[in-house]
Amino acid sequence: VRLPTLVAGVDRALTALGTPAEGQVVLLALSGGADSVALLDALCLLRRRRGFHVTAAHLDHRLRPGSGDDAAFCRALCERLGVRLQVGEADVTARVRREGGGIEQAARRERYAFLRRVQREAGAAAIAVAHTRDDQAETLLLHLLRGSGATGLGGMRPRVGSVVRPLLGLSRQEVVAHLRERGLAWREDPTNADPGLLRNRVRHELLPYLEARFNPRLRSGLARTAGLLADEAAYLRAQADALLDRIARPDGDGLVLERSELAHAPAAVARVAIRQALARAGGLARVRAVHVERVLALAGASTPGRLPLPGGREVRYRRGVVRLGPRPAAPAGNESGLGRET
Amino acid sequence: VRLPTLVAGVDRALTALGTPAEGQVVLLALSGGADSVALLDALCLLRRRRGFHVTAAHLDHRLRPGSGDDAAFCRALCERLGVRLQVGEADVTARVRREGGGIEQAARRERYAFLRRVQREAGAAAIAVAHTRDDQAETLLLHLLRGSGATGLGGMRPRVGSVVRPLLGLSRQEVVAHLRERGLAWREDPTNADPGLLRNRVRHELLPYLEARFNPRLRSGLARTAGLLADEAAYLRAQADALLDRIARPDGDGLVLERSELAHAPAAVARVAIRQALARAGGLARVRAVHVERVLALAGASTPGRLPLPGGREVRYRRGVVRLGPRPAAPAGNESGLGRET
Repeated sequence: VRLPTLVAGVDRALTALGTPAEGQVVLLALSGGADSVALLDALCLLRRRRGFHVTAAHLDHRLRPGSGDDAAFCRALCERLGVRLQVGEADVTARVRREGGGIEQAARRERYAFLRRVQREAGAAAIAVAHTRDDQAETLLLHLLRGSGATGLGGMRPRVGSVVRPLLGLSRQEVVAHLRERGLAWREDPTNADPGLLRNRVRHELLPYLEARFNPRLRSGLARTAGLLADEAAYLRAQADALLDRIARPDGDGLVLERSELAHAPAAVARVAIRQALARAGGLARVRAVHVERVLALAGASTPGRLPLPGGREVRYRRGVVRLGPRPAAPAGNESGLGRET
Repeated sequence: VRLPTLVAGVDRALTALGTPAEGQVVLLALSGGADSVALLDALCLLRRRRGFHVTAAHLDHRLRPGSGDDAAFCRALCERLGVRLQVGEADVTARVRREGGGIEQAARRERYAFLRRVQREAGAAAIAVAHTRDDQAETLLLHLLRGSGATGLGGMRPRVGSVVRPLLGLSRQEVVAHLRERGLAWREDPTNADPGLLRNRVRHELLPYLEARFNPRLRSGLARTAGLLADEAAYLRAQADALLDRIARPDGDGLVLERSELAHAPAAVARVAIRQALARAGGLARVRAVHVERVLALAGASTPGRLPLPGGREVRYRRGVVRLGPRPAAPAGNESGLGRET
């Protein structure tokens, strides 16, 4: 039998990903939206032929009234397809109150923590998430519009550890065509229509404009570029981690880096290393590209100095090392200074 | 005396670039357009204070009638500013006829060959070219719209060898404001208004649209991103060159790479290495990202194979090596095949 187009695409993707192997379990992250419903259907159509098992997990983020209806929808769908479903609930708002940061990031952290838990319980070899080529293209434009540095441009990779994205080479149009053909319903997230969210304006306004005026096949080009940038970002990250292994050591409540090694590393690697060092020494909340550049400039300077960083931290260069750590209680009037040490 | 804003910016850029040193000569590539006229003026205002000498070169590309008027304009301007000017003429159309490729690339090659010659004759330590932040932003968008791979996204670097770009951190708006304030005229290149050229539509349509609808400070964000990508591209190139030094050797009229080393290199490095290998074995004309991906897939395959490449070349994997070279005269019917070797 010939597989429907989308299913054939997922089949090829699973072969390229090399997971799940025969006899293994794949856990699908099911939101109830078009992408994850289509991926669930495709996995179910492939499970016998490829000899793997499918299980699903749905997290109710409780971010809007009626979000419980999505859970009920997922329950009914999974029952019909003969798929075990684990439903969880998260209190994202509480997490944001506790840890700061944006709603979207907090929701993502809750979701992945939940997926990891279900993965352990189900003994799943892989977690499948339903990002498409369109998500890749949109994310790249979004980052560009927000002025993210190059690190932020890197798109999603088809596989990171046990998380796989079998739809990454397929378009949303193919997803919707598949659902229509199969007579499958899905849930529309009402926030996807909110023009106040930049992502929605990129999706509904910018991409159609660019395709009409500049390049009708833009989406696939952007998605390909995002994939290449993701590989580059992964490589730079590995090089930066190796650099930090050589030049960084914990120092009380901070982190100390050998200045000369940092200053002589290629700028592309040094930037990622500084970002990773900041992540270890207090986290990346409110850290922007300009802070990374300032640390880089300080490390490359010919004279010692110090500068303040977000989160009550500072970076200080003296005696051949750069130290990232909490800002010491400053003498009055010096709190915001970029003063050089004398 | 306080320097005009643009001149102060160029002053800071020259300090960061570390060239020209006192007593040295800087050669300006002067087209007669706003950017290069402003840079010439700034360099002349700085030459005494910083103790360097300014000389200029103008190449008449003879691509449109009246291009000689630009040369006359540059002559008059340089005479007034007390700057020696070398004027050259190129036959770009002939070069394209001879070597193939696009007009823009051929013009660029002619221009740099001319600049190198004048640099040698003038004993100039640096060649200054007048690209602005706007050029950076436009180029990045242009590459994205065309669907360039990540390598093509990398922007211009402030310094590559002895070529420096002191205006790269400054905007076209600042350039024009400077010229108006100083009462300096410049030549408009009529092709800059041609909406048939994608670059002009990016400049006059897309960038204003994006700034109005999405991010009023987009241009500087894009330019910053382009600069970061340029550093990353330079790093990847260095890593790829190092990889090729280890695994590539010439083989008759082709190039042979150790397959296993190539297959196990990080994808981000392997892609650049393949591109560089193709450049050495016949050039990059008509080589697109998809060809690089195909070579990468062939090197990673578990069985030998071959595939055709642009320019009458092929890549062949057998006996542990990947060979890039001219396609041998094929048995009839096999010319376009992607056939695997048996």
